[in-house]
Amino acid sequence: MTHYLLNYSNLKIIQNNEMFKLSLDPVLLANFATIKESTKRILDIGTGNAPIPLILTTRTDAKIIGVEIQPEVYELALKSIKVNKIEDQITIKQGDIRKLYKDWQTDSYDLIVCNPPFFKISEQSILNVNDNKKIARHEITLNLNDIMLISKKLLKNNGLISIVHRPERLIEIINTMIEHNIYPKKIRFVYPKVNQEANAVLIEGSKNGKPGLKILPPLITHFDNGDYQPEILNYFKEN
Amino acid sequence: MTHYLLNYSNLKIIQNNEMFKLSLDPVLLANFATIKESTKRILDIGTGNAPIPLILTTRTDAKIIGVEIQPEVYELALKSIKVNKIEDQITIKQGDIRKLYKDWQTDSYDLIVCNPPFFKISEQSILNVNDNKKIARHEITLNLNDIMLISKKLLKNNGLISIVHRPERLIEIINTMIEHNIYPKKIRFVYPKVNQEANAVLIEGSKNGKPGLKILPPLITHFDNGDYQPEILNYFKEN
Repeated sequence: MTHYLLNYSNLKIIQNNEMFKLSLDPVLLANFATIKESTKRILDIGTGNAPIPLILTTRTDAKIIGVEIQPEVYELALKSIKVNKIEDQITIKQGDIRKLYKDWQTDSYDLIVCNPPFFKISEQSILNVNDNKKIARHEITLNLNDIMLISKKLLKNNGLISIVHRPERLIEIINTMIEHNIYPKKIRFVYPKVNQEANAVLIEGSKNGKPGLKILPPLITHFDNGDYQPEILNYFKEN
Repeated sequence: MTHYLLNYSNLKIIQNNEMFKLSLDPVLLANFATIKESTKRILDIGTGNAPIPLILTTRTDAKIIGVEIQPEVYELALKSIKVNKIEDQITIKQGDIRKLYKDWQTDSYDLIVCNPPFFKISEQSILNVNDNKKIARHEITLNLNDIMLISKKLLKNNGLISIVHRPERLIEIINTMIEHNIYPKKIRFVYPKVNQEANAVLIEGSKNGKPGLKILPPLITHFDNGDYQPEILNYFKEN
């Protein structure tokens, strides 16, 4: 039931289609997040099978901690780290970040990344999917407010929180950030084709940051014929 | 000093380079604003030399009222309307909309459009430009709060306010709309080239509207070699 489904650069990310398979979102987020010379500690909230930490290792030597609430998914993440022999750089913890972070040190991370559940909870949504997918997709164990509350505590001053989300929730995302003194600094909209509406948004905010927002160039994932654009293909190219 | 500088479709828009010349912004806004079958009355706040009302006549038979505070610019608008023989559809009023609207009927417009001054007032900005440009570009006689306050009164229920602005002020625009019970429904970012940051944002909100935001396809104005993209050229094509 376990597959080496994704080859990203020289990495192998272990997936299980019964639980979920990788979408483009973590790939885009891992490439969007700002990495600086001074970035030494990174936290990935809801790391899943650890695609974001794995991809980040191609960009930085910083220590990366991933937290995953689901034990079965956590096991997949551990396997991925082992197969790629990156145990020195990545640590995966199993648990509920909403509880774990309370005992963690304030101002201790330079960057937090999160590919969170996108959907609000509704009667309909609860009934329709299996447990693993439900938790990964719906705001049952983690919502926007949790993410920003956690980031407000754990980020250093001017530390960055980078997330990928759905454009229809943009206003709520921005306002939740600002409520927690996190100021949006850059946004990139992801359009499936040049003539289509955005289907994802990448947004990064700075703890206690100054106002000043940039809308980065459009990220158009596919040509009209369905082929991936060069930017996407480049992400997956082996070194 | 008066020139027929712009040909848009079959229209001629009278300009005076000493005061200001047309940018793409009003053209993009006049094509972005939602026109429905039921759209009967449109208001253009800060109409300048009336490019937006003139362009809107190519899309609708609705009555269009433009308001311009500067007498010299108002004269240009009158000339443009006369040259194009559209006096029946467009009425231009000279005056300060912040005073005028108080005597106007509530819930009387289906659509309000506005290409407002983009810049906040600073010592620097006040000193550097002539009076006509200063008023058109800086928030001396009209700011975001004024626009939304006026829209809140004059728009019918679910009436629309459509503006063009600078992306770095996106958060302020959204929040000012929401403070006045105007919910952003569609946003389109304007990118000068496919690999460049957005330099304009088109945003439309609905008075007492329900949440539900769409990010429309990217509007990329130029090819890498500097030529206009077909969408822009189409706007200017004669019928």
